[in-house]
Amino acid sequence: MTVSAEPKATNVHWHHGEINRDDRASILGHKGVTLWFTGLSGSGKSTVAVALEKALAARGVLSYRLDGDNIRLGINSNLGFSAEDRKENIRRVGEISRLFADSGVVVLSSFISPYLDDREMVRRIHKENDLEFLEVFVDCPLEEAESRDPKGLYKKARAGEIKGFTGIDDPYEAPTKPELHLRTDQLTLEQEVDVIIKNLQERGIII
Amino acid sequence: MTVSAEPKATNVHWHHGEINRDDRASILGHKGVTLWFTGLSGSGKSTVAVALEKALAARGVLSYRLDGDNIRLGINSNLGFSAEDRKENIRRVGEISRLFADSGVVVLSSFISPYLDDREMVRRIHKENDLEFLEVFVDCPLEEAESRDPKGLYKKARAGEIKGFTGIDDPYEAPTKPELHLRTDQLTLEQEVDVIIKNLQERGIII
Repeated sequence: MTVSAEPKATNVHWHHGEINRDDRASILGHKGVTLWFTGLSGSGKSTVAVALEKALAARGVLSYRLDGDNIRLGINSNLGFSAEDRKENIRRVGEISRLFADSGVVVLSSFISPYLDDREMVRRIHKENDLEFLEVFVDCPLEEAESRDPKGLYKKARAGEIKGFTGIDDPYEAPTKPELHLRTDQLTLEQEVDVIIKNLQERGIII
Repeated sequence: MTVSAEPKATNVHWHHGEINRDDRASILGHKGVTLWFTGLSGSGKSTVAVALEKALAARGVLSYRLDGDNIRLGINSNLGFSAEDRKENIRRVGEISRLFADSGVVVLSSFISPYLDDREMVRRIHKENDLEFLEVFVDCPLEEAESRDPKGLYKKARAGEIKGFTGIDDPYEAPTKPELHLRTDQLTLEQEVDVIIKNLQERGIII
């Protein structure tokens, strides 16, 4: 290699990249957005997210799921289940969702996130960065979620083996104005996916 | 934003089950990877990352930069500069880089990250998840970095106004086996970008 005589430090302090959000949208053919799935344990949040991910991929849309599996075991492995830690869990996931949405990815974040305040915090994190945030209320009756009980958690909560379980001895504060309200007792999984896809199209996020 | 009407994943055959890393690579036309830029303050880490981002975009490659600007003000806003907090800062960035690389994005993470142990932790986080991690040593002589001093930090460190500043009164542990070693005194910015692009091509990460 030859030694260059050119000065190279002229823009070292220049932290704003030349490539921006629009450029990334052009590369991808769609915009970034965070879809925040909230609902009871067993309501079907992850099931919808997995089905949606597949429908989006068939359209060439890059999506990525964030959920307890890749968050609690990774970046939030140093958080427990105290009230404070639960809030910090949601805050970090909100910030990560924001980064992914900024990168152009359609983020599918599935967390019970039972408190209005926490979800509003995540919404604010997005709005402050001029990013779209869609709250998706996976609205499943408690009796139905409890009868599914995919992880046996309701049983343990009823037996008092788990304390502070959402819907049993801790409240679920339902969204008051979700961008998408999926009534699982009225829609099939396919219909739920269709509703979301159409909504994303209407908003001009995907084609 | 310009949205293309052409589907981008026409040759992808969707299997049963969840969308995986290979599916996302098919959508994007390249694999995900973390490029971890380490070097002194003022060494040019961000400058290379910004230039690389542009070169990648010109090739239709989706990259995303993580640096102090979008991390320290966001997810790590509750961290200070104690030894413990610095380590946690790098751990979280490592976990976020891992998620992005898994999503298919070419992640450009620029952090001084002066300690071997911390960088090895980030490498391990990736290897455990079967993800590629490329350590990029932005090797700039201290005198050169200090003479640039884009943020006036070296001046403050020399005056004793900042304690524990890397290169002044805190060590920089240079990588012993970086995947990419950029000697800024021998390469122009364009050459640095070319070296990285060629390396990514040779590894089959991008075309």
